[in-house]
Amino acid sequence: MKKGINLIEKEFQEYVKKISAYNEALALINWDLRTGAPKNGVEQRSEVIGVLSSEVFNMITSKEMECFIDDLTTEEASLSETTNKMVQECKKEFERNKKIPADEFKKFVILQSRSESAWEEAREKADFSIFQPYLEQIVAYTRKFVEYWGYEGQKYNTLLDMYEPGMTVDILDKVFNQLRESIVPLVKQIAESKHQPETAFLYKEFPKEQQHQLNLRVLKQLGYDFKAGRLDETVHPFATGINRGDVRVTTRYDEYDFRGAIFGTIHECGHAIYEQNIAEELTGTLLDDGTSMGIHESQSLFFENFIGRNYSFWKNKYPLLKEYAPDQFADVKLDDFYRGINESKPSFIRIEADELTYPLHIMIRYELEKALFNGELEVKDLPEVWNKKYKEYLGIVPEDDAMGVLQDVHWSDGSFGYFPSYALGYMYAAQIKQAMLKDLPDFDDLLASGDIAPIRTWLNEKIHKYGKTKKPLEILKETTGEGLNVQYLIDYLESKYKEVYKIK
Amino acid sequence: MKKGINLIEKEFQEYVKKISAYNEALALINWDLRTGAPKNGVEQRSEVIGVLSSEVFNMITSKEMECFIDDLTTEEASLSETTNKMVQECKKEFERNKKIPADEFKKFVILQSRSESAWEEAREKADFSIFQPYLEQIVAYTRKFVEYWGYEGQKYNTLLDMYEPGMTVDILDKVFNQLRESIVPLVKQIAESKHQPETAFLYKEFPKEQQHQLNLRVLKQLGYDFKAGRLDETVHPFATGINRGDVRVTTRYDEYDFRGAIFGTIHECGHAIYEQNIAEELTGTLLDDGTSMGIHESQSLFFENFIGRNYSFWKNKYPLLKEYAPDQFADVKLDDFYRGINESKPSFIRIEADELTYPLHIMIRYELEKALFNGELEVKDLPEVWNKKYKEYLGIVPEDDAMGVLQDVHWSDGSFGYFPSYALGYMYAAQIKQAMLKDLPDFDDLLASGDIAPIRTWLNEKIHKYGKTKKPLEILKETTGEGLNVQYLIDYLESKYKEVYKIK
Repeated sequence: MKKGINLIEKEFQEYVKKISAYNEALALINWDLRTGAPKNGVEQRSEVIGVLSSEVFNMITSKEMECFIDDLTTEEASLSETTNKMVQECKKEFERNKKIPADEFKKFVILQSRSESAWEEAREKADFSIFQPYLEQIVAYTRKFVEYWGYEGQKYNTLLDMYEPGMTVDILDKVFNQLRESIVPLVKQIAESKHQPETAFLYKEFPKEQQHQLNLRVLKQLGYDFKAGRLDETVHPFATGINRGDVRVTTRYDEYDFRGAIFGTIHECGHAIYEQNIAEELTGTLLDDGTSMGIHESQSLFFENFIGRNYSFWKNKYPLLKEYAPDQFADVKLDDFYRGINESKPSFIRIEADELTYPLHIMIRYELEKALFNGELEVKDLPEVWNKKYKEYLGIVPEDDAMGVLQDVHWSDGSFGYFPSYALGYMYAAQIKQAMLKDLPDFDDLLASGDIAPIRTWLNEKIHKYGKTKKPLEILKETTGEGLNVQYLIDYLESKYKEVYKIK
Repeated sequence: MKKGINLIEKEFQEYVKKISAYNEALALINWDLRTGAPKNGVEQRSEVIGVLSSEVFNMITSKEMECFIDDLTTEEASLSETTNKMVQECKKEFERNKKIPADEFKKFVILQSRSESAWEEAREKADFSIFQPYLEQIVAYTRKFVEYWGYEGQKYNTLLDMYEPGMTVDILDKVFNQLRESIVPLVKQIAESKHQPETAFLYKEFPKEQQHQLNLRVLKQLGYDFKAGRLDETVHPFATGINRGDVRVTTRYDEYDFRGAIFGTIHECGHAIYEQNIAEELTGTLLDDGTSMGIHESQSLFFENFIGRNYSFWKNKYPLLKEYAPDQFADVKLDDFYRGINESKPSFIRIEADELTYPLHIMIRYELEKALFNGELEVKDLPEVWNKKYKEYLGIVPEDDAMGVLQDVHWSDGSFGYFPSYALGYMYAAQIKQAMLKDLPDFDDLLASGDIAPIRTWLNEKIHKYGKTKKPLEILKETTGEGLNVQYLIDYLESKYKEVYKIK
C-alpha cells in the first residue's frame, strides 16, 4: 500500500526539524567561537563543526530528501502552504549541493580554509601576491560551479541569485548607474562645501563601560527583546539568530569614537528585530530566517540610517547620550551633533564608510566581480583595476593593497555575489521608508517622542513575520507597490546631504 | 572476504569520534544554558538537545555498535590499549542502555523532567507531598532498572557502580562507620570549645568586581590555563570540560561573604585542571573525561581543602586578598583569618556545610538511599527518617522540608548512588595528599612560596593524564599503594580541627 501523502508530509516535517536542530547547534557554536571560546579548544571544535555540517549536507542531499521532494512536489495542492515553501527551499538546496561532484566540493572546502589563511597573511603584509594563487583557484572553482549550476543571461546572475533570489545583472546595472550618477557629483559638492560640520567632539574619550550601558538602553528602547537575546562584545559586530527566541547581537567599543559602537549596535538591532519577529510557526522549518541578504540588510540599514541617523531620533536620544557622557557633549548643540555624526568623506575602508559614499564601495566590488565571471578580468589584474575605480568613483587611491583590494574577507572563501546585497538593502530600506510614510506620516514625530512601536509593528507585519515564505522581490512589491526603485535612496541622500552641507 | 581487524578498528574510532562530537556540542549547549542563554530560546534549544541526545543514544545502542563490540572484543590482543579501553567503555554503555526496554526508558525520561519541576515547586513551598508521588515513581522505575541491569550482593551496589565503578555497600559501610565515629565526637568537642574563631570580618562588603579580579588571579596562580578555559558567573558554580582545550569554570559572588566565590572557584579549578591535563591522544575517544565522580571530586576537594584551606597557602595569598579588600582585612591577623575561614558548625544545607561536618550530610543520604533500594524504607517515610538522622548525627532538626529532605536536586531525576562520590572524593583526596607527601615532603613550603607547579605536575602524572583509561580504585592503588583507607581523612580532620579550636 502506498503511504498517504499526509504521513509523508509529517515525516518530511520531522526530517527538516532535525536538519534545523543541527543548524541551531552550529549557530550556537559559531557565536561561541566569536565571543570568547578558549583558543586551545578551537581545533577540536572544528571537528565538531565538520561532523554537524556533514550531517546537514548529507541530510539535504540524501536519497530520502530526493524522495520527499519528488513525492511532495507532485501533491502540492493537498499540502499546507508552509510545507510547499519548505519543499521549494529544500529543492533549491538539494540541487545547489547535488550538482557539484562531491570530490570537487570537498577539495573546494579545504581550499576555502587555506585561502582564508592566505588572505589574512596577505592583508597583514599588504602583499597581494600571497593571496593571488589562492584567489585564482577560488575563482576557477566558482566559474566551474556556475557551469554546473547553470545560468540565465549572464553567468554572474547565478551568483547573485544565491544571496538575492531573482536579482540579475540587468537590474543591478541599471540601478547602480543611476545611483552613481547622483552620488559622485554630490560627493564632489560636499568636498567643496564651505559648511563642513564640526567633528572634534566625536573623538573625545568615552569609557567603554559607559558606552556599554548606553548601548543596552538604546537597544531596549528600540524594542530589541532581551528575553530573546543578549549583547556581547566582539572584534567585528554581528547579529545571529540561533532561534527566534535567541537572537544575539554584538558590538565593538572604541573609547575615542563612540559612533562605531552605537551605530553598529543599532544596525545589528535591525537584523535582530527581524529574526525575533519571524512567525513562531516557522520554527524548525528552515523558513525561519531572513528571506535574503538584501532584505536582511534593509532592516539593519533601516534601523541604522533611517532611524539612527535621523535628526528626530537624536532629538529624543540626545539627553540619554549626555547621561553617559555629560562632559563630551555639554557644549555641543543638537544641530551640530547631528551634522557631526553625518559627516561624509571619501575613505578607503568599506566598513568604515559613511552612508553617502558607502554604495560606491559596493559598486566597485560589483563591477569587479561581474567582470571576473564574465571573463573580462583576471585575478592578477584586480589590484590595478581596484585602484583605478577608487580614483574614478571616490577620487582617492589606496596607499597599499591592505587598504585596497585585500580589505574584505568575502572573496577568500568564494562569496562572490554577496556584496551587492549591502547596496540593495540600502535601496530597499529607502523604498520601504517611503512606503511606510503613507501609513505613518508622523514618522519623525514618533522618533522624536521615542515611540518606535508603530514603526516596528509595521515592519513586523509587512516583512518580519514572513521569514523565508516570501521572496525578496515579492516582499518589496507587496510592501511598496513596485519593483526595485533606486530613486527613493537618491532622493533621501540628496535632500539629507544638501541640508547637512548647506548646499543649495 | 572478511574485513581486516585494523580496518574495523579504524571505523570504530571514527564512529566513536562522531559520538564524541555530538557530546561536545551538547556540553557547549548546556554551558550556554547555564551562563546566560536568553530565556525565550530555551524551549527550542531543548528540541536541539533532544535531537543530539537521541543521536548519541542511537549510535551507542545501534546494531553497528554491537558488531564493533563483538568483532573487537574477540581480537583484543591485536588492538591498541586505547582501543580496548574504548571498547570496554562502549560495551558498558551499550549494555546499560540496551537492557532497559526502549518504551520504559522513554517514559522514564519524560517522568524525570516532570519530577524535577515537581521537586522545584515542592522545595519552594516546603511541601514534600507535592514531590512524593513523583519520587515514588522515580524510585519504582529505578528499582525495576536495577533488576534489568542485575546486581551483585546488595541491589544498591548497581547504582553505586554507575558513578564509582567498583564501589560497594560493604566498602562504604565500613569507611562511613569509621568516619562517623571520629567526626561526631569531634563536632561535639568543637561546639563546647572555649576557643571559637572570630568571624565577623568574613561578612563585610566585598564588591563583586573586586572579587572577580581576585578569583581570576587565584585561578591563574593555581595553574588554571586560560587559553583552555574561561571564568563566568552562575547561580550554581560548576566546571565543564567541553574538550580538553576548553574547560570552563563558573563561580557565584556574594558581596557579604567572599568565601563562597573564592572556595567555589578553587574547587572548580581542581575539576578543571583534571580535564585540562588529560592526555591529548584521548580526545575523541570517550575516554577523555574524569574516570569517576569520586576521583573527579577528589581533585576539586584536593584543591579546595588541602590547598585552599591550608594555612601555608594563605601565608602566600593573604597579601593578594588584601590587595582587593584592603579595609576588610587590615586589622585581621593571618592566624585569625585562617581560624575564621575554617569555622565549623552543624548546619542544614549540604552545599553550605564546612569541611568537617560535610561528610555527615553525605552519610545521611547514603543510608537513606541504601534503605530505599534494599526495601527497608519507603518514599513517604523519607522526611521523618531524614530529620531523625540529622538530629542523631548533627544534633539539629530542620524547620521544614525545604531545609531538609527537599534541598537537593539529585533524587528528582533518579541520580541515586551519586551522593557517596562526594565523600569518597574527600577520602581519596586525603589519601592522595598523604601519598604526595612522600614525593613532596615540602608540600607546605611549596604552598607558602606560591609554587604550585610541582603539586600540579604530580597530580597530572599520577591521575589526570589517564582520563578514563584507569578505573578509580586502580588509580588509588597505583597512586597510594593501597585500597580506600579512611584513616587519612580522619587524621587530617582531627589534627586540623583540634588545632583550629585549640582542643587538647
